[in-house]
Amino acid sequence: MKPNFSLRLRVFNLNYWGIPYLSKHRAARLTRLGDFLNMESFDLALLQEVWSEQDFQYLKQKLSPTYPAAHYFRSGIIGSGLCVFSKHPIQDTTQHVYTLNGYPYMIHHGDWFCGKAVGLLVLHLSGLVVNAYVTHLHAEYSRQKDIYLAHRVAQAWELAHFIHHTSKKADVVLLCGDLNMHPKDLGCRLLKEWTGLFDAYLEAQDFQGSEEGCTMVPGNCYVSQQDLKLFPCGIRIDYVLYKAVPGLCISCKTFRTTTGHDPHNGSPLSDHEALMATLCVRHSPPQQNPSPTCGPAERSPLVSVLREAWTELGQGMAQARWWAAFASYVIGVGLLLLALLCALAARDGAREVAVLLWTPNVGLVLGAGVIYLFHIQEAKGLCRAQAELQHVLGRAREAQDLGPELEAAPLLGQQEGDGVKEQ
Amino acid sequence: MKPNFSLRLRVFNLNYWGIPYLSKHRAARLTRLGDFLNMESFDLALLQEVWSEQDFQYLKQKLSPTYPAAHYFRSGIIGSGLCVFSKHPIQDTTQHVYTLNGYPYMIHHGDWFCGKAVGLLVLHLSGLVVNAYVTHLHAEYSRQKDIYLAHRVAQAWELAHFIHHTSKKADVVLLCGDLNMHPKDLGCRLLKEWTGLFDAYLEAQDFQGSEEGCTMVPGNCYVSQQDLKLFPCGIRIDYVLYKAVPGLCISCKTFRTTTGHDPHNGSPLSDHEALMATLCVRHSPPQQNPSPTCGPAERSPLVSVLREAWTELGQGMAQARWWAAFASYVIGVGLLLLALLCALAARDGAREVAVLLWTPNVGLVLGAGVIYLFHIQEAKGLCRAQAELQHVLGRAREAQDLGPELEAAPLLGQQEGDGVKEQ
Repeated sequence: MKPNFSLRLRVFNLNYWGIPYLSKHRAARLTRLGDFLNMESFDLALLQEVWSEQDFQYLKQKLSPTYPAAHYFRSGIIGSGLCVFSKHPIQDTTQHVYTLNGYPYMIHHGDWFCGKAVGLLVLHLSGLVVNAYVTHLHAEYSRQKDIYLAHRVAQAWELAHFIHHTSKKADVVLLCGDLNMHPKDLGCRLLKEWTGLFDAYLEAQDFQGSEEGCTMVPGNCYVSQQDLKLFPCGIRIDYVLYKAVPGLCISCKTFRTTTGHDPHNGSPLSDHEALMATLCVRHSPPQQNPSPTCGPAERSPLVSVLREAWTELGQGMAQARWWAAFASYVIGVGLLLLALLCALAARDGAREVAVLLWTPNVGLVLGAGVIYLFHIQEAKGLCRAQAELQHVLGRAREAQDLGPELEAAPLLGQQEGDGVKEQ
Repeated sequence: MKPNFSLRLRVFNLNYWGIPYLSKHRAARLTRLGDFLNMESFDLALLQEVWSEQDFQYLKQKLSPTYPAAHYFRSGIIGSGLCVFSKHPIQDTTQHVYTLNGYPYMIHHGDWFCGKAVGLLVLHLSGLVVNAYVTHLHAEYSRQKDIYLAHRVAQAWELAHFIHHTSKKADVVLLCGDLNMHPKDLGCRLLKEWTGLFDAYLEAQDFQGSEEGCTMVPGNCYVSQQDLKLFPCGIRIDYVLYKAVPGLCISCKTFRTTTGHDPHNGSPLSDHEALMATLCVRHSPPQQNPSPTCGPAERSPLVSVLREAWTELGQGMAQARWWAAFASYVIGVGLLLLALLCALAARDGAREVAVLLWTPNVGLVLGAGVIYLFHIQEAKGLCRAQAELQHVLGRAREAQDLGPELEAAPLLGQQEGDGVKEQ
């Protein structure tokens, strides 16, 4: 790599809100999105909520002159909704479907049926290995009573862990997507602390866009004002995050968001705002000592956020076990009722009622059985994430025991390539 | 690393057959297994089918003086059954649960409920990063009519891809487990070709054990003779596979299997045979050119096996879609019947029969709905694996188009660290 080497990476991210039959003006928005992406010619366009594979195929065809490479991440029953379009050849892809993703009986929320995931594509650009991740986490339907909090924290941990294990040879790591978390939310802090990723909005040298970088804003005609009543400016839940290995400096030159409408005509591209970042990767001159914020960060916020996540997962686990226990009581009562119905059926007077109630009761027992199994699986998934957190915390304690001069970072298994960013 | 550096790694692998209430002499075998592992003091002991977490906890406690580090991989409803015991500190762990793993309605086979997975533990030994993987793939219940073949091939691909993406900084890669595949089976060839892993049984300088290295042998009193009627010597379905990065030479000094009974007393430890390998990792002297079989292998077998797997997954996908279509017909018929029952209920004469048949019919529609969704998900999972294979094959074609002097290997995204083994 030449000393004056420089790589400019223009990235686009959008949660496209493409629910067939339900999302408003889907076809028109898709056409405009395709036109916009072709005109802007980004290096990478990462989309979420492209639920219909036909929409992906339409975009793939339309964008093929500008973005010859494309990938659709298939998972679950409906799909992950994730796809990418790249100006550069995609060297490799893989994906990880989150273990926990809501409840199948919450049909009106629907997340469980999507198989939410993180997709990875590996690019080789100017001799650098770039790992680009795209993801979409479980939605938050109520901020006051968020029944999916433990699942989202577990997803954030799996996402961070997946990046940690798959980016060991990457020079540049990029994560885009709809995290469904506000910047200060537990899962968001956990993700940033464990991966060492920087937030493009916070780091941008030149920002233009919505107030406070919000990605769901009241000015967007597709956004329900009811959902934003607690946040009059809007909320920031979509992100562009990045880092580079030591020896490289990465900076966000410009960061743009749409502001409730398409940049070239009045109507918005989606109910979310699009993010557009220009990242610049350069050599980190050997004489330049990275500033304190550039190197591995002070680790106590990591330990504290790991503990907080551990507690949250524990509460989720208790809840899952309560539901499993409740379902097992229902099974017990159902079986007792079945025995009672058998006894009633033996008597002439109540035979008809007994026969009539038999099948719904069998349905009740079977339904409760399925719910029991589901929550057992949920508890196991939360327990797995908790055990992984426990292992990391244990190693942090060992690091402390070995003396204060030993930083917890390397013992915590952080990539040696914890982000170096240009100031 | 010193030039005369040498690392000796003693590894134990066993499918322990630990089904609570069903596996014979489970408690006695567990005790003997613990005693044996303590006595032999391996570097790593990797187990499958430890279905009960209590069994794991018992072993963890019993083995703690010899193997201070242990990890249990939780997944699915029952669990993955995978666990590891290590003499050396475990730096990091993660796991990947296979997308496809049989059918929930095949309750008597039970694989779907296990959440079969691959577990990874990262060790730092003598300055080397060792990635040890443990796995257990879907069982083969009938060799003549194997309805799970496409799932097992997809699992083998996911396993190979998981190793490919998570071992990029590993100096040594080790994979142990019950693959439920014979050495020449499609999935086994796919795994070996894509990862470049070597088979310890085939490479061992000194082998002692069962005939042809079989891991289910007729001499084992727990093995059903009916299952082995096509294979009088037994079958080899459990493996120790390994590789190292260039600059390192890895060899299998000794390879042992049990032969139908515990090495120290007459009864077997499990219905599978245990595998014990001594691996030796040394510097690969710079003047030594690796022999042709050591370097990246000729890639046409890879392309051919990728094509074969692609076809097999396609057949599985057609099957999955057929089942989804069949389920949708049942839903249609069920809904028609429901409408008919409504009409019957309006008449006085048939009201009782109509009311009686209403609930089972609703059950039929719901059941068919669940089966429909399951097979849609199955088709999507197979389609995902096929798309990944397609991508790799496409890149192989590009490599060919670029000229014969360009080896397909680097373009196929193989780790630069394709195994170098000592002859």
